[in-house]
Amino acid sequence: MPPILSIVGRSNTGKTSLVEALIPELNRRGYSVATLKHSKKGFDIDREGKDSWRHQKAGARLTALSSPGSLVLFENVAEEYSIAKIANNYLTAVDLVITEGYKQNEYPKIEMYRASHNTPLLYDNSEELLAVVGDRPDNCTAPFFELARIAALADIIEEKLLMKTTKGLLDN
Amino acid sequence: MPPILSIVGRSNTGKTSLVEALIPELNRRGYSVATLKHSKKGFDIDREGKDSWRHQKAGARLTALSSPGSLVLFENVAEEYSIAKIANNYLTAVDLVITEGYKQNEYPKIEMYRASHNTPLLYDNSEELLAVVGDRPDNCTAPFFELARIAALADIIEEKLLMKTTKGLLDN
Repeated sequence: MPPILSIVGRSNTGKTSLVEALIPELNRRGYSVATLKHSKKGFDIDREGKDSWRHQKAGARLTALSSPGSLVLFENVAEEYSIAKIANNYLTAVDLVITEGYKQNEYPKIEMYRASHNTPLLYDNSEELLAVVGDRPDNCTAPFFELARIAALADIIEEKLLMKTTKGLLDN
Repeated sequence: MPPILSIVGRSNTGKTSLVEALIPELNRRGYSVATLKHSKKGFDIDREGKDSWRHQKAGARLTALSSPGSLVLFENVAEEYSIAKIANNYLTAVDLVITEGYKQNEYPKIEMYRASHNTPLLYDNSEELLAVVGDRPDNCTAPFFELARIAALADIIEEKLLMKTTKGLLDN
């Protein structure tokens, strides 16, 4: 299973923007990245009337769509999959999995924080909190980075989560 | 790899309707089904501005969306995957994979045929052709079924493609 990094934070703090900034920086360093997004209420992806929707509606457990540039897979699940199960089943080809939208999880985290929200950090004093990004919170014990300092943030991710992978590759 | 059944036929002959009719009949008989749809021009599934689209655009090789009832996976592929590769990577959990939209392939086939199109069968005299469905073509050597006779068609699929699986399960 690839290492997992969880991007956390309250609504509208810019979690997706952080993911968008991190991926190209990690790609540039030679790491392939998968993202995993969670939603309680589901995703408005497949549309009524489309063939894939009709296949799923008819009772297909899995529906794959294949074209020259992309593959899309729909799976009906009886019970929601855990992060580990999804990573193990579907995301083993990458160097790092970045999750977004999972409130409770045991993986290393980066929290997006906006002072204007006037709310406390979600993961202050948590050992899993690698860094806080956005606005500097009062009395924060974790390292803090402005969103623009993406390279410094990537350094921490590399050091804490990816060095073992790299070392493993170099040893082989 | 699960057995593969290819639904073929010219445009607008009702291939998706056949898939929609087959899946519940096969489910009723205890078989789980995956579908695999091919398109040369890609699928208009993920929409600009959505988080999954933003992740992919930023360079994520894979993006998974997870919710209580479903999982959706997007993969950027450098070269189009073969049917066998998709079945092996993603569809091993089912008893049968039904493909739609693949013009050239080596798997057992059912051809949807409409006499009003005034075109010949695509796979006449092919050993892979298990059955023709829709309108009865002139001089067809393969078994013919009207779309309404879905149970008889499922019998053939079961006999030709699924018996080995079932027998394997019973033997264990």
